[in-house]
Amino acid sequence: MVRWEPGARARLQQAALDLYAERGFEQTTAADIAESVGLTERTFFRYFTDKREVIFGGQDLFQQAFVDGVAAAPADASALETVAFALDAASSFFPDERRPYSRLRQSIIAANASLQERELLKMAWLSEGIAAALRERGIPEPRATLAAESGVTVFGIAFRQWLSEDETRALAAIEVEIMKDLRELRR
Amino acid sequence: MVRWEPGARARLQQAALDLYAERGFEQTTAADIAESVGLTERTFFRYFTDKREVIFGGQDLFQQAFVDGVAAAPADASALETVAFALDAASSFFPDERRPYSRLRQSIIAANASLQERELLKMAWLSEGIAAALRERGIPEPRATLAAESGVTVFGIAFRQWLSEDETRALAAIEVEIMKDLRELRR
Repeated sequence: MVRWEPGARARLQQAALDLYAERGFEQTTAADIAESVGLTERTFFRYFTDKREVIFGGQDLFQQAFVDGVAAAPADASALETVAFALDAASSFFPDERRPYSRLRQSIIAANASLQERELLKMAWLSEGIAAALRERGIPEPRATLAAESGVTVFGIAFRQWLSEDETRALAAIEVEIMKDLRELRR
Repeated sequence: MVRWEPGARARLQQAALDLYAERGFEQTTAADIAESVGLTERTFFRYFTDKREVIFGGQDLFQQAFVDGVAAAPADASALETVAFALDAASSFFPDERRPYSRLRQSIIAANASLQERELLKMAWLSEGIAAALRERGIPEPRATLAAESGVTVFGIAFRQWLSEDETRALAAIEVEIMKDLRELRR
């Protein structure tokens, strides 16, 4: 019989991040995480396939936010404008309330080489998704990939800035600035 | 006593790639590689720290070729022109004779998720090296990182094209084309 645990997923996720930050990712087991919030290891595996998924789950929704943004861009937008539109749309994925959580997550990834590799793979996959959506709009290769990669680069730089200490601007506002810098790279 | 084996490094490298392609990377051991060219496992480990290093060795020289290219660019070049100059300089790292070897290497990486992650890490590290060299030239952030990432994107797309079947153009020539596409993304 499966017992219903209200808010178990969110509790497990927060507990996992706290333990990863405190002890290190490798040193934390699924049982440690479950125990710290009074749940069983079995309950942990009902919500997450493994320890990594606590950090990287929800990737599909994340990519979809950008892909939907590409689809919603004005028909006459250039490849780069389309990507800028997608970044703006997807920034709703990272409201300011999420900043402390994202900072904690980033510090855990920064401390572990295999998590860093996994994060790079996630960004490469995001770029491929955006490029596919651009091709759907009739933008040919290599432009679709160039624009998608440029967008992911802008997102990455803006996101790191968003997480930095003392930064108070919203992610979308930072993205606009970085996109402007990108356009001016030739000067 | 260490016995001198003429050309052992190159023989081990070619044998390793052939076996990785034939059996898969995970299924091949260092002993298999050494044995296939009449050498011992111990000899293998005199040249390579592990199986991965056969594929990813020489990274320092690879990055240095780009960094030297940045340093050698004309003083009045824009950030993007500087990166284009570095790409052109580094393309001497991939003469056409190297295409068959690079194709084999790429097919091995494409077949293994952990090697793909490793390759992404190598490209991220290349980008960081280029960005550092751009900052040395007085290009501030976030422009240095934007230009470096744009350069690595252009390199990546051009390199995949260079490896594709029936492609006969030199890498440098393909890079020039892709760089042009990048500049025209706004249209």
